Amino acid sequence: MISRVSILGTGLLGTSVGLALRAAGYKGGIAGWNRSSEQAELARKMGAIDSVAADPIQAARAAQITVLAVPIYATIDFMEKLAGVLGPDQLVTDVGSTKRMIAETAARLYNTPERAAFLPGHPMAGKERGGASLADGGLFRGAVWLFTPDPAARLSPRGAELANEWRSLVAAMGAKTLDLDAVRHDELVAWVSHLPQFTATALSALLEEEVGDAPELKDVGGRALREMTRLGSSPYSMWRDIAHTNTEAVERALLALEQRLAYLRENLRTPALRDEFEQANKFRRE
Amino acid sequence: MISRVSILGTGLLGTSVGLALRAAGYKGGIAGWNRSSEQAELARKMGAIDSVAADPIQAARAAQITVLAVPIYATIDFMEKLAGVLGPDQLVTDVGSTKRMIAETAARLYNTPERAAFLPGHPMAGKERGGASLADGGLFRGAVWLFTPDPAARLSPRGAELANEWRSLVAAMGAKTLDLDAVRHDELVAWVSHLPQFTATALSALLEEEVGDAPELKDVGGRALREMTRLGSSPYSMWRDIAHTNTEAVERALLALEQRLAYLRENLRTPALRDEFEQANKFRRE
Repeated sequence: MISRVSILGTGLLGTSVGLALRAAGYKGGIAGWNRSSEQAELARKMGAIDSVAADPIQAARAAQITVLAVPIYATIDFMEKLAGVLGPDQLVTDVGSTKRMIAETAARLYNTPERAAFLPGHPMAGKERGGASLADGGLFRGAVWLFTPDPAARLSPRGAELANEWRSLVAAMGAKTLDLDAVRHDELVAWVSHLPQFTATALSALLEEEVGDAPELKDVGGRALREMTRLGSSPYSMWRDIAHTNTEAVERALLALEQRLAYLRENLRTPALRDEFEQANKFRRE
Repeated sequence: MISRVSILGTGLLGTSVGLALRAAGYKGGIAGWNRSSEQAELARKMGAIDSVAADPIQAARAAQITVLAVPIYATIDFMEKLAGVLGPDQLVTDVGSTKRMIAETAARLYNTPERAAFLPGHPMAGKERGGASLADGGLFRGAVWLFTPDPAARLSPRGAELANEWRSLVAAMGAKTLDLDAVRHDELVAWVSHLPQFTATALSALLEEEVGDAPELKDVGGRALREMTRLGSSPYSMWRDIAHTNTEAVERALLALEQRLAYLRENLRTPALRDEFEQANKFRRE
């Protein structure tokens, strides 16, 4: 049984994980750390963690499971710092949006019988803005929580047990788990997550230039425009590491959309427009 | 006072107009016609109209206000047919998504002291699919209802009165009215309505090709993906006339988005990405 979890990073996702663990009936301790101690204190007041850790490394040492809920490069920094101080009776997992670099780091520093275990994870849930104040214990209900375990990993027996216990906790949070290869993961999320985000950012930036000086005209677009630009309010800080660690796959997806838009533009008055609509209709047909 | 309205086209918008008129307290008669009499019968059962007209021209002749709620080219056909049979004590208005061609037709055939009045209108409300069954008497609540009146129009005194009464009814339906030049209208909606639609169509068509054969992966995208592709389920039949009657403005908007996506793609690892996010953030800052 797990009696001690540490959550490093108590922003939207880390704080939501703490709340969801409590909602799922987890009774053990949850220590939390955040670079900004105000966010950690807020997470504690919200009941997501029961103690604020001054030192993230000490918090992880004292826990059986450590959840890294910080941006990708910060996750890799923590993975490097923790590898030397954790042992084979401990599991580290994460919630990062790209998995190739994290899986490579895990293969290099974790997942031998003598070392701590690392299970790369990625809940497909979030909001357009971050921060503990927006956290929600129901955030993962009905969402898909991806894992990219390494088939070549040689986990310690306790590490393997902890990985299974974490999977059970994730299921108890209401998420559906799905295992994928890390490289395939990054290609997939380039299409279904990163492309929609960067499209909304480009569309919002363009519309700000075209109609931004006439605020009453923003209302004209109604619900459709609000939906297509909601993600436009996502801050750079949430997407920088994703752009840096999944560049090639995102470039391919963006180029493909540019070409698709050009094709549609060249066919506004031809029967090919009907075919494009019919192909699009299929994507939303359940 | 208006005692008789006819609604030609009882799809989503026409039926919603009838329901909204009743919800706003309009007590007079509402005759409805639809190319498919089943849709008209459904609108009658829903209480949006109180009689199904066999002949749309006869229904319009008997009404003080006729609302054209059919696609753009069908609207223009009706305008041509009705111009010869209606008189200066009658008003025709419409709910079409592009206004330049309709305003030109109105200037040619309506809006002299001897002729019927025509007030081009465009409620910025809708759903991704059409049909009477999806109609909603609250559809226009909080929405903007654009009008593109011709400053050179010389309406009959009764035509001017009826136009004002129609504006009052639209306000009573809960919509905010806004007057625009017809050409400016078409440019504006190319940005805030047509560009979002064609972007969602292109994105959905592309994703159907990339991940459509793995339905479980569609779930992976979560709420953000659902929002960015909801409009992808809109049928060609709702957008064909828009693509044909606002081609140049939509081409300009699509080309601008292609260029913006290319710029973002070329800058995934440069500080320019931050600037794009900050520009996008401004669009959604209230």
